[in-house]
Amino acid sequence: MHFLLHSDYEHVVHHGLICDSKDGDFTLPQVHAYRDVKEMPACDVVIVALKATQNLLLPKLLPASGAVLLMQNGLGGEELLAGLVGPDRIVGGLSFLCSNKVGPGHIRHLDYGHVALGEFAVRGVSDRLRTIASDFERAGIPVQLLDDFRVARWNKLIWNIPYNGLSVILNATTAELMAHAATRQLCEQLMWEIVADARACGVPVGDVIVAKLLDHTEKMTPYRTSMKIDFDEHRPMEVEAIYGNPLRAVQAAGAKSPLVETLYRQLTFLDSANRRSATA
Amino acid sequence: MHFLLHSDYEHVVHHGLICDSKDGDFTLPQVHAYRDVKEMPACDVVIVALKATQNLLLPKLLPASGAVLLMQNGLGGEELLAGLVGPDRIVGGLSFLCSNKVGPGHIRHLDYGHVALGEFAVRGVSDRLRTIASDFERAGIPVQLLDDFRVARWNKLIWNIPYNGLSVILNATTAELMAHAATRQLCEQLMWEIVADARACGVPVGDVIVAKLLDHTEKMTPYRTSMKIDFDEHRPMEVEAIYGNPLRAVQAAGAKSPLVETLYRQLTFLDSANRRSATA
Repeated sequence: MHFLLHSDYEHVVHHGLICDSKDGDFTLPQVHAYRDVKEMPACDVVIVALKATQNLLLPKLLPASGAVLLMQNGLGGEELLAGLVGPDRIVGGLSFLCSNKVGPGHIRHLDYGHVALGEFAVRGVSDRLRTIASDFERAGIPVQLLDDFRVARWNKLIWNIPYNGLSVILNATTAELMAHAATRQLCEQLMWEIVADARACGVPVGDVIVAKLLDHTEKMTPYRTSMKIDFDEHRPMEVEAIYGNPLRAVQAAGAKSPLVETLYRQLTFLDSANRRSATA
Repeated sequence: MHFLLHSDYEHVVHHGLICDSKDGDFTLPQVHAYRDVKEMPACDVVIVALKATQNLLLPKLLPASGAVLLMQNGLGGEELLAGLVGPDRIVGGLSFLCSNKVGPGHIRHLDYGHVALGEFAVRGVSDRLRTIASDFERAGIPVQLLDDFRVARWNKLIWNIPYNGLSVILNATTAELMAHAATRQLCEQLMWEIVADARACGVPVGDVIVAKLLDHTEKMTPYRTSMKIDFDEHRPMEVEAIYGNPLRAVQAAGAKSPLVETLYRQLTFLDSANRRSATA
């Protein structure tokens, strides 16, 4: 396991990686850390865990061989990678966990914890997927292997679009959004709209996901979403990956998504104002 | 001219009413001020200038005779008054001005300044309307007399719904909302949706209003909307009058208004959180 690090490099070299987890805290006191891809050995699998806002760095980061597993929110990341290294090398990944970075090399894992993997270019579970899954499972991480990765990616948007956006726009935790009738209803309306969006894009998501996500979110530890944390820290938000790209896909399919579009415009404004106030 | 005052009563009795206006400052050093309607003389016209959030006080405030002129934002106020004193006594009023209260008995008038009046129960310009208008005009206030008051009320909603709501939700002035492409486009989308809403309710608003309002707002002095001021002061916002009542009217007509509904739910949440933080 080799880690490419940016701002945390020095800290991790001296202190390792620390994870406070609801499933048990652990430390990796010594990791293979790098700050330049040129120094890294060839790997069978490259896990891309950048924020989508940093995807412009990818052309300089990706190696000439090996599978590329993207673990990222939003839509359009696999398509971007496929354009850089070819579709056959791409594996799609989704992580289902609530975790925040609390300091350099220091993660707090609050809730959930499984990952889902699927092939990008083909349907069905490949041998490559099974091999990668066994590595995750040996590290104690439950893995779901997906027959149709697009369904899982859209299913995740059905959570990310309402909760990430509204937590920023309304300055609220997931628990607060669920506790008030007006926002709970807005979340549900958004979810149904995104179900229709996915289907307009030819992705057969099921109805049952809406009730399931509402139920999960109500039972979840009150959570500051990743987008809210980015906003609070005056970092760029993943507005294009989570809102802009799905919206453009829906519009290209000849459909409309007025609630998602409203959030998209509100977040575009807030992201712009927030970056200005960071530099002011 | 007799004024019913609440929290400003003592101050106005001693210091009068002060208006800083772009058209020239003036003071009314002595006004007929009251704090109880029982002490007020009978009047030909009662001007109701309460915030819509205070309309629950109206049953105790209205006299047994005289025209009742409502100057208020949103929808549903005239209907409420008609239920209390009968529809024939009601005159609808709209004020087109940017002004803020800056202290007890102290108004700052920033921009615009005309009022529009129309009969509630009938179409056309009545003698009563002309009489009231001449009183306003003698005070230097331009008056527009309306053949169909409902058109003017909806036209005003076409401004109030986007700018009041988004200024609160996005913590922005009208100028900031117009300067950013995402929010300018959202304002325009909202406007077209409200045009369709009005028509669904049988009110024939014209297309030209949208370009006119966008143009006016761009040229306007940067303005903190009345709803934003209420929010910043932790006062109740006119969410039901400006959003809830129009939305219910549209739904009763069998139509939908998804963008207005989104803002309605967001503002309902923010209003609730804002009142809690005022008392905390």
